[in-house]
Amino acid sequence: MIDTSALQQRFISIRENKAFETFVIAIIIVSALVIGAKTYAIHPQVNALFQVLDVAITLFFLAEIIIRMIADHSIKKFFRKGWNIFDFIIVTASLIPVDESEMALLGRLLRIFRVLRLVSIIPELRVLLNAFVTAIPRMGYVSLLMFIFFYIYAAMGSIFFSKINPELWDNITIAMLTLFRVATFEDWTDVMYETMEVYPFSWIFYLTFIFIVAFVFLNMMIGIVLEVLQREHEKFDRETGAGEAGEVHWIREHTETMEQRMERMEKMLIDLHENRQNKN
Amino acid sequence: MIDTSALQQRFISIRENKAFETFVIAIIIVSALVIGAKTYAIHPQVNALFQVLDVAITLFFLAEIIIRMIADHSIKKFFRKGWNIFDFIIVTASLIPVDESEMALLGRLLRIFRVLRLVSIIPELRVLLNAFVTAIPRMGYVSLLMFIFFYIYAAMGSIFFSKINPELWDNITIAMLTLFRVATFEDWTDVMYETMEVYPFSWIFYLTFIFIVAFVFLNMMIGIVLEVLQREHEKFDRETGAGEAGEVHWIREHTETMEQRMERMEKMLIDLHENRQNKN
Amino acid sequence: MIDTSALQQRFISIRENKAFETFVIAIIIVSALVIGAKTYAIHPQVNALFQVLDVAITLFFLAEIIIRMIADHSIKKFFRKGWNIFDFIIVTASLIPVDESEMALLGRLLRIFRVLRLVSIIPELRVLLNAFVTAIPRMGYVSLLMFIFFYIYAAMGSIFFSKINPELWDNITIAMLTLFRVATFEDWTDVMYETMEVYPFSWIFYLTFIFIVAFVFLNMMIGIVLEVLQREHEKFDRETGAGEAGEVHWIREHTETMEQRMERMEKMLIDLHENRQNKN
Amino acid sequence: MIDTSALQQRFISIRENKAFETFVIAIIIVSALVIGAKTYAIHPQVNALFQVLDVAITLFFLAEIIIRMIADHSIKKFFRKGWNIFDFIIVTASLIPVDESEMALLGRLLRIFRVLRLVSIIPELRVLLNAFVTAIPRMGYVSLLMFIFFYIYAAMGSIFFSKINPELWDNITIAMLTLFRVATFEDWTDVMYETMEVYPFSWIFYLTFIFIVAFVFLNMMIGIVLEVLQREHEKFDRETGAGEAGEVHWIREHTETMEQRMERMEKMLIDLHENRQNKN
Repeated sequence: MIDTSALQQRFISIRENKAFETFVIAIIIVSALVIGAKTYAIHPQVNALFQVLDVAITLFFLAEIIIRMIADHSIKKFFRKGWNIFDFIIVTASLIPVDESEMALLGRLLRIFRVLRLVSIIPELRVLLNAFVTAIPRMGYVSLLMFIFFYIYAAMGSIFFSKINPELWDNITIAMLTLFRVATFEDWTDVMYETMEVYPFSWIFYLTFIFIVAFVFLNMMIGIVLEVLQREHEKFDRETGAGEAGEVHWIREHTETMEQRMERMEKMLIDLHENRQNKN
Repeated sequence: MIDTSALQQRFISIRENKAFETFVIAIIIVSALVIGAKTYAIHPQVNALFQVLDVAITLFFLAEIIIRMIADHSIKKFFRKGWNIFDFIIVTASLIPVDESEMALLGRLLRIFRVLRLVSIIPELRVLLNAFVTAIPRMGYVSLLMFIFFYIYAAMGSIFFSKINPELWDNITIAMLTLFRVATFEDWTDVMYETMEVYPFSWIFYLTFIFIVAFVFLNMMIGIVLEVLQREHEKFDRETGAGEAGEVHWIREHTETMEQRMERMEKMLIDLHENRQNKN
Repeated sequence: MIDTSALQQRFISIRENKAFETFVIAIIIVSALVIGAKTYAIHPQVNALFQVLDVAITLFFLAEIIIRMIADHSIKKFFRKGWNIFDFIIVTASLIPVDESEMALLGRLLRIFRVLRLVSIIPELRVLLNAFVTAIPRMGYVSLLMFIFFYIYAAMGSIFFSKINPELWDNITIAMLTLFRVATFEDWTDVMYETMEVYPFSWIFYLTFIFIVAFVFLNMMIGIVLEVLQREHEKFDRETGAGEAGEVHWIREHTETMEQRMERMEKMLIDLHENRQNKN
Repeated sequence: MIDTSALQQRFISIRENKAFETFVIAIIIVSALVIGAKTYAIHPQVNALFQVLDVAITLFFLAEIIIRMIADHSIKKFFRKGWNIFDFIIVTASLIPVDESEMALLGRLLRIFRVLRLVSIIPELRVLLNAFVTAIPRMGYVSLLMFIFFYIYAAMGSIFFSKINPELWDNITIAMLTLFRVATFEDWTDVMYETMEVYPFSWIFYLTFIFIVAFVFLNMMIGIVLEVLQREHEKFDRETGAGEAGEVHWIREHTETMEQRMERMEKMLIDLHENRQNKN
């Protein structure tokens, strides 16, 4: 029993060690560079070296996550943190061997995601990604609204234009892709001029679409800006007493004590006053 | 008389029912999927099924709106809400049969707009669309200003460049479309290089146009951002007493009561003081 | 003498007349429509009608501006307002006849600017354009910085790439136009791939350029947003006592009177206190 | 000893001289124009004149920086300011002669950067560039996150698409350049349609990429906006007592003195009160 506890203590001290963290970051970067290097035409011998390196990195990551698991006392506690689940999936996924030709592609693909471990290990990146995740629900409804407009325009497009150019408007899926292209302004006039030959007023279709999408997109941006602003502001408010919000908070509290003091003072004054009047 | 009232009560309970609402949403989604599926090449038998489905959906929507009408006690009250008018138009419009070949296209087109009922039934989307609608007047004048600039540049363009490329500059309508294309940066250099062969300094025309439009557009964005910010802020202010604005409001009210208390206190003090002086 | 004054009074009443203003707006719109209609291939007879209409409009504008001049009591006072100078230039410029073939183009061009009178007559548009004008100094320095970066990159571009494609990089003017095209992302990869064949690392040139320009441009936007926000905020602050800023202002003033009252109260208390101690 | 001091005094007065500053700006602009003019095909005689001018400008800049060095009392103090180092590097770099053919290109290149001296000499531009520099750390982590996403997508792209079009996806470097092109929407559909012929669902790859990049980019923008806003706000707060923040600060300070006064008053009242009670 004492042995396990001592091991745990050592593992905790390893996990907290700044040098170990830097080492893990270095390994992740090496792992990323190997992934990148493999996309070049490389000498078979270098490739063999990479094979060995890959096994070493995989084992290292496995060891590191086991250390962190043991350091966390219980598996349950370990999996309670979202980032740990994130790391666990990435590490176990890359246990799939890349030797067999069939699974090789999948194995290589899964190894790419090891680069994402950089996000989970660097606190500043974790904060950034967290901000993204919290903004998702707000973006969800805006995306849904945008999707509805895309769907309606795509349905209209494939009804009217499918015979003009089946490659762009054959069915609703292709039409939505074409509309996304129009939304990014990518050669959208070619798409428009083609349909304008049959329906001269089809420019109304494209212009209203561009206006609506630009509008929705702008709102999406504003929504996020507002949310981030609000959150940053509140955080700043809570943590420091400085700034305007801090001063207002100070005033509020002191106004409260001033009021209580005044109440006491008024009571005494009333007392004095009544006393005086009684005398007179 | 009692019968109608009982019916009304039942209809109100149906309308308020959460399960019924979910069912309506499901039907709208099915209706949207049918519209989407029809844009694919489908088997005639499946198409026949879709025909039946369409009639069923149309009837369901008709029934649903009648239920809501009756639940609202009076037709007048029903039509007072903008979203009800919105739903009514969409539902009645899709009553047009799609069987006859002539009206088929129009019928299909009108059925597409049934997807918009998703917006009117999901509260979050309704809020989003309301925000758009309230932003329209603010955008109106900016759009007018933008239109004036487009008109002036289009008039200049069609006077000078109509002989260079009639397809792009023949008259003011086509020229405005060409300028919109330039504003989206879509192959705008092709348009410019063409006219620069005749008028080498025509790049001034394009660059000033791009600067003005980008400027106006940015201002439009800012205008909306400001308005949304202001509105959100005020709403937050009113609803909660928390936050800086809430604390300021609290201080303001308490300063008022403090002042009144002080006035009373001063009066008493003056009384005491005068009394003392009289004595002396 | 009395005659002129009476005339002036009548002219002032005309100028203030809402119906007259609406009529002027209508004439401006008609004038704009004539300009637009002329860009179409029109029947000679209609054209003759337009000729007559043009003379009528020109005379009407002349009469209107003279009325406003007289109504303003003195020419000096009239020209003190920027918008009056703006109108005066537009109206006198369109006095150039369009009959002679030589001046016809210039005359038509000047007539286009009559549409801008819509801006000077509709108050909301005037406010918008004023906002643009006040933002110019702030934008000036950002534009200058952007120009410097364009100039440096254009100089580099024309030194290194002029032999690769003289049409895009021959001299600094053409190179700046090419860079503006790159900044709008218009077929910029074609420009890049061409130079990458000779200088494989020239993508660094394009990528740093795009980053710098995007950065400067963003700052420009922010600068305007900040300025507009500040101005709107201050205006709101001054005009209404509502809102957070209004409440703070209210508190500030009342704190001042409270302090004065307290000073008076303290003096009286000291008096009472000293008196008491003397007695004892 | 006295001589050097007198010289220093004169140099300081030269440096502070407004006319001298204007003259330096004029020389920088002339230098910039010469650089620009050289990109045109010019007459050999004019070129010879430019050669002479270049030497004159280089010597003038050298003299100017020496004056500023001496005026600053010590070399150490001179180099403590970042802008002085900036100027020093630009000036010394352009001492490289442009006569020899080998170094000519480098010499010309270095002379271009003399235009940047405009930034260091005009205070408003210096403020703008400073704002950029202070925003860099904040942008650093966002850029890193963006780079990670680019890297992952590029690795995926070059694994799957390298055989489809080696020119766009051969290795990770080329793939990242291709993805940057997709991010700027430059003919990105051509890239997509090509890979969709082999992998029909590869549009998911492009769409998710565009969404992530747009999202990260937006956040980057917001981060800068927030930082600039915060900084501007605080600066305004400190410098002027005006505005809401100024009023709040005023109230905070006066609330403090009011509290102290009240404490004194309460003490006296308690005294009076106790005294009274003792009497009674």
